[in-house]
Amino acid sequence: MRSMVPDYLADALADVEPDTSGALADYIPELAAADPGRLGAAFATVDGEVYGAGDVDVELTIQSISKPFAYALALADRGFDAVLAKVGVEPSGEAFNEISLEPATGRPRNPMINAGAITTHALAGVAGLGPAGRVERVLDGLSAFAGRRLRVDEGVCASELEHAHRNLAIGHLLRSHGVLTEDPDAVVEGYTRQCSVLVTTRDLALMAATLANRGVNPRTGERVVPEPVVRQVLSVMATCGMYDAAGDWATQVGIPAKSGVAGGLIGALPGQIGIATFSPRLDQHGNSVRGVSLFGRFSADMGLHVMEVPPPALGVVRAHTVVGSGAEAVRVVQLQGGLGFAALERVVREVAATDMPETTVALDLSTVYSVDDVARRMLLEVVRRLTLDGHDVHLVDPEVLVPAPDPGDGGRVTVVGSVDDVLAARRHRAAESGAVR
Amino acid sequence: MRSMVPDYLADALADVEPDTSGALADYIPELAAADPGRLGAAFATVDGEVYGAGDVDVELTIQSISKPFAYALALADRGFDAVLAKVGVEPSGEAFNEISLEPATGRPRNPMINAGAITTHALAGVAGLGPAGRVERVLDGLSAFAGRRLRVDEGVCASELEHAHRNLAIGHLLRSHGVLTEDPDAVVEGYTRQCSVLVTTRDLALMAATLANRGVNPRTGERVVPEPVVRQVLSVMATCGMYDAAGDWATQVGIPAKSGVAGGLIGALPGQIGIATFSPRLDQHGNSVRGVSLFGRFSADMGLHVMEVPPPALGVVRAHTVVGSGAEAVRVVQLQGGLGFAALERVVREVAATDMPETTVALDLSTVYSVDDVARRMLLEVVRRLTLDGHDVHLVDPEVLVPAPDPGDGGRVTVVGSVDDVLAARRHRAAESGAVR
Amino acid sequence: MRSMVPDYLADALADVEPDTSGALADYIPELAAADPGRLGAAFATVDGEVYGAGDVDVELTIQSISKPFAYALALADRGFDAVLAKVGVEPSGEAFNEISLEPATGRPRNPMINAGAITTHALAGVAGLGPAGRVERVLDGLSAFAGRRLRVDEGVCASELEHAHRNLAIGHLLRSHGVLTEDPDAVVEGYTRQCSVLVTTRDLALMAATLANRGVNPRTGERVVPEPVVRQVLSVMATCGMYDAAGDWATQVGIPAKSGVAGGLIGALPGQIGIATFSPRLDQHGNSVRGVSLFGRFSADMGLHVMEVPPPALGVVRAHTVVGSGAEAVRVVQLQGGLGFAALERVVREVAATDMPETTVALDLSTVYSVDDVARRMLLEVVRRLTLDGHDVHLVDPEVLVPAPDPGDGGRVTVVGSVDDVLAARRHRAAESGAVR
Amino acid sequence: MRSMVPDYLADALADVEPDTSGALADYIPELAAADPGRLGAAFATVDGEVYGAGDVDVELTIQSISKPFAYALALADRGFDAVLAKVGVEPSGEAFNEISLEPATGRPRNPMINAGAITTHALAGVAGLGPAGRVERVLDGLSAFAGRRLRVDEGVCASELEHAHRNLAIGHLLRSHGVLTEDPDAVVEGYTRQCSVLVTTRDLALMAATLANRGVNPRTGERVVPEPVVRQVLSVMATCGMYDAAGDWATQVGIPAKSGVAGGLIGALPGQIGIATFSPRLDQHGNSVRGVSLFGRFSADMGLHVMEVPPPALGVVRAHTVVGSGAEAVRVVQLQGGLGFAALERVVREVAATDMPETTVALDLSTVYSVDDVARRMLLEVVRRLTLDGHDVHLVDPEVLVPAPDPGDGGRVTVVGSVDDVLAARRHRAAESGAVR
Repeated sequence: MRSMVPDYLADALADVEPDTSGALADYIPELAAADPGRLGAAFATVDGEVYGAGDVDVELTIQSISKPFAYALALADRGFDAVLAKVGVEPSGEAFNEISLEPATGRPRNPMINAGAITTHALAGVAGLGPAGRVERVLDGLSAFAGRRLRVDEGVCASELEHAHRNLAIGHLLRSHGVLTEDPDAVVEGYTRQCSVLVTTRDLALMAATLANRGVNPRTGERVVPEPVVRQVLSVMATCGMYDAAGDWATQVGIPAKSGVAGGLIGALPGQIGIATFSPRLDQHGNSVRGVSLFGRFSADMGLHVMEVPPPALGVVRAHTVVGSGAEAVRVVQLQGGLGFAALERVVREVAATDMPETTVALDLSTVYSVDDVARRMLLEVVRRLTLDGHDVHLVDPEVLVPAPDPGDGGRVTVVGSVDDVLAARRHRAAESGAVR
Repeated sequence: MRSMVPDYLADALADVEPDTSGALADYIPELAAADPGRLGAAFATVDGEVYGAGDVDVELTIQSISKPFAYALALADRGFDAVLAKVGVEPSGEAFNEISLEPATGRPRNPMINAGAITTHALAGVAGLGPAGRVERVLDGLSAFAGRRLRVDEGVCASELEHAHRNLAIGHLLRSHGVLTEDPDAVVEGYTRQCSVLVTTRDLALMAATLANRGVNPRTGERVVPEPVVRQVLSVMATCGMYDAAGDWATQVGIPAKSGVAGGLIGALPGQIGIATFSPRLDQHGNSVRGVSLFGRFSADMGLHVMEVPPPALGVVRAHTVVGSGAEAVRVVQLQGGLGFAALERVVREVAATDMPETTVALDLSTVYSVDDVARRMLLEVVRRLTLDGHDVHLVDPEVLVPAPDPGDGGRVTVVGSVDDVLAARRHRAAESGAVR
Repeated sequence: MRSMVPDYLADALADVEPDTSGALADYIPELAAADPGRLGAAFATVDGEVYGAGDVDVELTIQSISKPFAYALALADRGFDAVLAKVGVEPSGEAFNEISLEPATGRPRNPMINAGAITTHALAGVAGLGPAGRVERVLDGLSAFAGRRLRVDEGVCASELEHAHRNLAIGHLLRSHGVLTEDPDAVVEGYTRQCSVLVTTRDLALMAATLANRGVNPRTGERVVPEPVVRQVLSVMATCGMYDAAGDWATQVGIPAKSGVAGGLIGALPGQIGIATFSPRLDQHGNSVRGVSLFGRFSADMGLHVMEVPPPALGVVRAHTVVGSGAEAVRVVQLQGGLGFAALERVVREVAATDMPETTVALDLSTVYSVDDVARRMLLEVVRRLTLDGHDVHLVDPEVLVPAPDPGDGGRVTVVGSVDDVLAARRHRAAESGAVR
Repeated sequence: MRSMVPDYLADALADVEPDTSGALADYIPELAAADPGRLGAAFATVDGEVYGAGDVDVELTIQSISKPFAYALALADRGFDAVLAKVGVEPSGEAFNEISLEPATGRPRNPMINAGAITTHALAGVAGLGPAGRVERVLDGLSAFAGRRLRVDEGVCASELEHAHRNLAIGHLLRSHGVLTEDPDAVVEGYTRQCSVLVTTRDLALMAATLANRGVNPRTGERVVPEPVVRQVLSVMATCGMYDAAGDWATQVGIPAKSGVAGGLIGALPGQIGIATFSPRLDQHGNSVRGVSLFGRFSADMGLHVMEVPPPALGVVRAHTVVGSGAEAVRVVQLQGGLGFAALERVVREVAATDMPETTVALDLSTVYSVDDVARRMLLEVVRRLTLDGHDVHLVDPEVLVPAPDPGDGGRVTVVGSVDDVLAARRHRAAESGAVR
């Protein structure tokens, strides 16, 4: 069978191709000379598969799409407190190049506007690193997100530097507020190099997939940034990534995203997928016209909106039975699906509501396929409370979803590979017990 | 076993209780006279269980928490286009009572600031409804969200009306821009009645759970608003619900939420839970101090952040085997967990990568516990493509997760209750085939 | 001889008549139905002569031109402190209908924008006056400025009230800040009546002339407001009268002015003239197109710019002679022109630099035509110091420009009608002295 | 006699000396180290007399007081159109260091805020001048205003440059809008040099007096800038010179003024006087605390407010008589005072209202002390119209206030030195006439 995913992507591109509205960025000759007809889209899964259609191997400059990644690096390198002290997280409701500093402190409102991104660049790498070191750190970091060595387009970079007056203004303003403490010219130059990194749409999809995959590049397996950083970055992308169209995007597309002036656009859906598109003509917000259309279609077709209410699942308690009778009776609670707080709450509720004369209780995870942290803790508390109620608790966990379970404080649990093991053990004990008696 | 959820809630309340920072709203005597020590929290699950601790049955006025619900009603009653033409969805980065109209059109930036909420109130109910009818519609709608008949606190309402100068200013401004076309005094009065509805923390949790449950009240089973409305409302709560603290909330708590000046605070996590807290002292943003603390704790403890990357799941393909041999051989692909785009992509990839000499292919959903819309479509496309490749495709779907499957256009599928049914059928056919030969 | 002033006015009107650019105000039918071709201009001198050309007797509604006059009445009725506590004097750089309140206090930035004018209306008359009393007070006051009984155009007023949403918004906002303490609906209605007063261009010129004439109507002789009020009003007109075109006006025209949406425009040049024009088509700032042209022309042709440096005057000391000799010698310092600080400084300097052996000194004001307050004080100080130096000082003041001169503290002066009187007196005394000796 | 002006100044200083409120500017060490007790005030008359009291010979850096003078130089060097295309004239209602650019064009709102002053610096000198040339031009120009060679305080300049981040930000922003077309670093450096020029309070008074004296330095007699430039500069000082306190200043003091962060403050009253004060402690607007007090006192004591309505003058027509009778009768209209439009209007009115059987009319200017341009033109028109009415017109103008009078188009006038000359001439002609008869 041939996969339908490439077909889907190709169909989607064909649908948006006729739309030639929007205009190229033209503030530097290199962008103004781009081929406006370029069109590409790629999906990268969290296990590293990449699907592409169209111009996914054509290089473009990353531009503002570097912002969330550099923010991730700064958070990883300096810690949350140091970064939040310098750059806020509030949506500004303003265009990308608005200066938008908080009146009293001069702190940029968020890392997605230029003021915030310039400040963020200065926070990449360990404190005290010089300008060259910072650029190196950012280039290394972006490369790690992409899973291959990236390089700067020196021609674009030089041209951007010649037109960097507004960013230089922002840099000096940040310096005047003490938000920047370095030479603003050098920081702006470094930021400009960051924006001039060349990537393909395929790279961008993998970079987004690294965010979707908790900070681990799904191809190289490298942990690029820690998990809490990813959550922060995705949250900021969700509220501030699309500038003054943030609300439209959040309601209609609902995928944490970031666009670049060269026509790139990425989206990352936590745990699921990284998406990238490339089409250079921009709308009045500075976002790729056809990229926005494609994301709208992807979101609708694939149910990728973060506020999409998931479909009603089958009950987490797949079966609740008593096997055997008398002293050999074993109560088996078979769970299924992905276990989180909501699922465990139902387990707890069912267990709490049940009168359990049986000594042995088996919690069967053999048809469970994931257990998150809170579910693990609640499950162990169920074990502990059942122990305290006098039960002999078994955890059927053939896939080791709950490694080394420790219910703590009076709890006790026996881990087995199947319900049959529980029954066998129970029979054995009943026999012993009978022999003794 | 006793459930640990009430214990957890009680512990959480005990932790935040000593915090007496913040101040009561004092613009009307009724709010200034509230008991500042009130403290309560409730969880409502999407199947209608409500856990509460503290003052969850004390009545408070709903105030701004009515905004997302009234917005939902307006969207349901008038349709998206009519409402979006009058009220935007962009975060304003401003305080709740900022006027924040779009300069050219006078359209309020979003429905969570007062200007947007006043406009939204005017859009509740069918067009042409008078002021009294609108209030009735809103009261009915809020009651449906809560699952019981709510009523207005006439004393608070009268007092609010005496201090409604700013809202009246906003109303007249909206009227001057033609955003409101009705008498602004009447609209503001209606809006004030809406804000004066009495609710308990328990009610609020159920209202939030109705949003989390795709618009269906989990207790009464009533569909209050359609699903697309819920997605819109949650998206807007996520970006604009906490006023000028929206970014902090989005990064740190990550639960679509709304606060009210009487000390209420709700959060709704799609598909999972509705949460409500009550504590009247407010921070400088107008949000309940202890409510904000509680939500931070709930989010961290229970992994409720919308950008929380879910834990790595076991592979969607639980087993991929060939049963039998020769003409009787059946290829069985056993899936597990919740199926969405990402899961199906892996199924597609595995199927596409496999050389399948067997005529009969069984897609086994018996350990699957949910199938979303895109997964269903992709699954059917897999069926169709396998049919076109010459396979005889069976869907093992004992729980009827894919009702009436129609792969369309050349596809064909046999639905059975177990893999054994497939094998039996295959054996039968092989026998027939042998007999014929 | 026929005066050339009417010819000049007629020529000016003829020059601007072909300009049909701009547009009628159209927010109410009455203004939209105005005859756009109307054109008139009038000059009123500070002694009450009125020159007019064109439609100077056609009635128009006064609209915003009422603002400086109502401000004058409020200052007169309540005092500076009470008014300044409620309305600022800073130019806002904003359009007439911008809300422009000071962020913390809600105080409107100045009395020429609507927010300030509405507040000002509420401050007209003694405190505690009801709405009807305030309107009566304002109507009486405007009538006193015009020198005839004015009346409200009830049709326009009713129509304005139907479209007063923005002003009502402002009123409620002011009420919410406690800037207004009355019912804002009533204040806005009163303000609307104030704006609906009917005037002719001739009236407007006389109203402006009353300001130019230190607050005394030059026709009726009635003191409408005290002098310090006039200075305040003219200052505010100079900086805030032309809204967001204030700077252009201040540099190019330089006459304190105020425009109205019905096409009126007034200017008042302190001590010189009141000017009014009428032409209903407005520019984008809301100022009469042809009115602005006419004022530009008047200012340039007649040197009316307040920053126009006056022509170099002949020296204030017309002659400085010694008449007679010996004991009969009298030193005569003959002054000329208008005496102010700068003139007196030169007198002082000359007197201080002169060695004066003569006992008798005559300060001759017979060719002086005005003496301001500081000049009077300095002149008396010269007298005092000369007395203390042993001189016998005479003031020749046939026109009684310095009534009842009191040099104080050791000074002494003899007032006479001519230098001859001094000489005669001196001769007489010398004779007496000789007789005694 | 000793002049009372120095006494007045000394008294004024003594009155404000105890006020030690306010704070030194502290953004550079040099300003923070200033002696806060310094206090000085100087008056410079338009004929070059300078009165000083206190620290009038202590050097301070000119700082923002250079702004109006550099603006004057730019207007003189480049013309109004070129300068107005780059810098507006609207008050911004904002603090001195607000960026305040017009949104669309990036044009600074006025030349008194830093953005406008930086732009203005770049417009000094002929186009194409390099940075050094511009600084030289400004230094020459400031020196010409002061009447002595000024120099830069290199220490202050270097220190300012180290803290010029905000100005550099503004410079780059202006460059990004194309308002600046030069290297912004160089322009800001030049501007900083301009602000670091050392002056004394005495210098500042003379610089102000040069503005008051129509652009001619009253000491050196050098015309520094043309008259129309002075009017523009004074107008902009009047509306924008005191930043966000512009309205307070305009109403309470009413003297076009400019303050500097080193504690200097100047005011120029057209045709009258230049004033400067020096006291380094600043209020929250950045204006010298004691300087503001002193100006308030000077304005009140000396009637220097530009909106001060001048005192009622004696009638411009001092006498209107007929001398002689019959054929020898001569109508003599004796004028007095300073003649402007308002005065001439009355002359015209009187002449127009008078039935004049006499052939000979004498307009007697012997007690007039100034005639402005419009008065001259009106006077000549009176002459022309009287000629056309058949009169034989004489102008008695002993001081040559109307040189080379040309009434044009049918008018004719005989200039004489005294009324006696007219009478003599008339008698002579009557005699001739009689002889003929």
